[in-house]
Amino acid sequence: MPRRSVADAARTHAAILERSIDLASVEGLEGLTIGRLATDLQMSKAGVLGHFGTKEELQLATVRGALAIFAREVWEPAQEAAPGRARLLAIADAWMSYLGRDVFPGGCFMTAASTEFDGRPGRVRDTLARANERWMAVLAADARAAVKAEELPRGTDPQDIAFGMNAIAMGVNQARHLHGDASAPDRGWRALRTMLGAPRARRRALPRNP
Amino acid sequence: MPRRSVADAARTHAAILERSIDLASVEGLEGLTIGRLATDLQMSKAGVLGHFGTKEELQLATVRGALAIFAREVWEPAQEAAPGRARLLAIADAWMSYLGRDVFPGGCFMTAASTEFDGRPGRVRDTLARANERWMAVLAADARAAVKAEELPRGTDPQDIAFGMNAIAMGVNQARHLHGDASAPDRGWRALRTMLGAPRARRRALPRNP
Repeated sequence: MPRRSVADAARTHAAILERSIDLASVEGLEGLTIGRLATDLQMSKAGVLGHFGTKEELQLATVRGALAIFAREVWEPAQEAAPGRARLLAIADAWMSYLGRDVFPGGCFMTAASTEFDGRPGRVRDTLARANERWMAVLAADARAAVKAEELPRGTDPQDIAFGMNAIAMGVNQARHLHGDASAPDRGWRALRTMLGAPRARRRALPRNP
Repeated sequence: MPRRSVADAARTHAAILERSIDLASVEGLEGLTIGRLATDLQMSKAGVLGHFGTKEELQLATVRGALAIFAREVWEPAQEAAPGRARLLAIADAWMSYLGRDVFPGGCFMTAASTEFDGRPGRVRDTLARANERWMAVLAADARAAVKAEELPRGTDPQDIAFGMNAIAMGVNQARHLHGDASAPDRGWRALRTMLGAPRARRRALPRNP
């Protein structure tokens, strides 16, 4: 394949994926159809299928793309912080900012996809479950470091911290998208800091979209 | 209509609704089709449509039926408790028991339906949003009574308590259905009691299915 075609194909692939992630975040992964994507992107169905083969492959690529965005938005801004409570607080900031900025138009992609697929065995569900497990393990590892450093009370179960952070994020996402509650990320941020035993008084505004 | 036919019609209506709630809890409200229900219940499509008219009416009846089950399972066992913290603790018991017993085969109906419909304007979304608002108001009212009676720390925001209880329930539902984590209701129960400032030491087993 000449160099030009390779670059073109990569651009088309990325464009399909971008549209697919946006569409799935609003209408669900099952709502993704090759036909709908082809219409939106003014491509032929064969053109879309040529990039992803099957609907399941398209769903998997969409999930992986969304996971990469989540990592970029919530993990990367926090990763340089010191392991332990400092990093959990940095994650809390980034996570609430991500939810407040509606990075995915339909709300948190992972929450929606997990709810949609938790009763549908298969590769999509497995990919989502593994990603959520890895994320919970990252949170629990920092919670463990925080307990060891006495930044969290002795006897705190690191899994309880991971569970609680994830639950608060789900609650914020629901309040924002079911009720249009713009203050939900701030409420979630206070709840996260309370759980992590950090001062609530020095409340600061979450970063907004530029 | 002769009395016999009225009773028959009511029974058929209830049977359609029961199947519809189970199906929607696993496959989503959009996954509900008149044809699928007719096949499952060995009825004609016209027979199912005669009871609900349109897909939207069927979805609304399904949501209302599921809300009645939630009220029966989570509110009714707690409603006789004293307003304030006692009732919030009774609700915590009933809520975690409801999630632990998989009352809906696909997990909490309201969580799934809210996530599915939060980006789809219309009567189904409005019904779900209003029901969630009413439930949050019930929780916040008891939290307010608890703060007034000094059962919760002065300055506690009652909405924070309602938000936190709802978020914990969402987290339990995800852990149970995405990861098959059987201990999730116990973890959620401890988190709820910690949030409500109730002793964790006297941990007792949640009621199980008989």
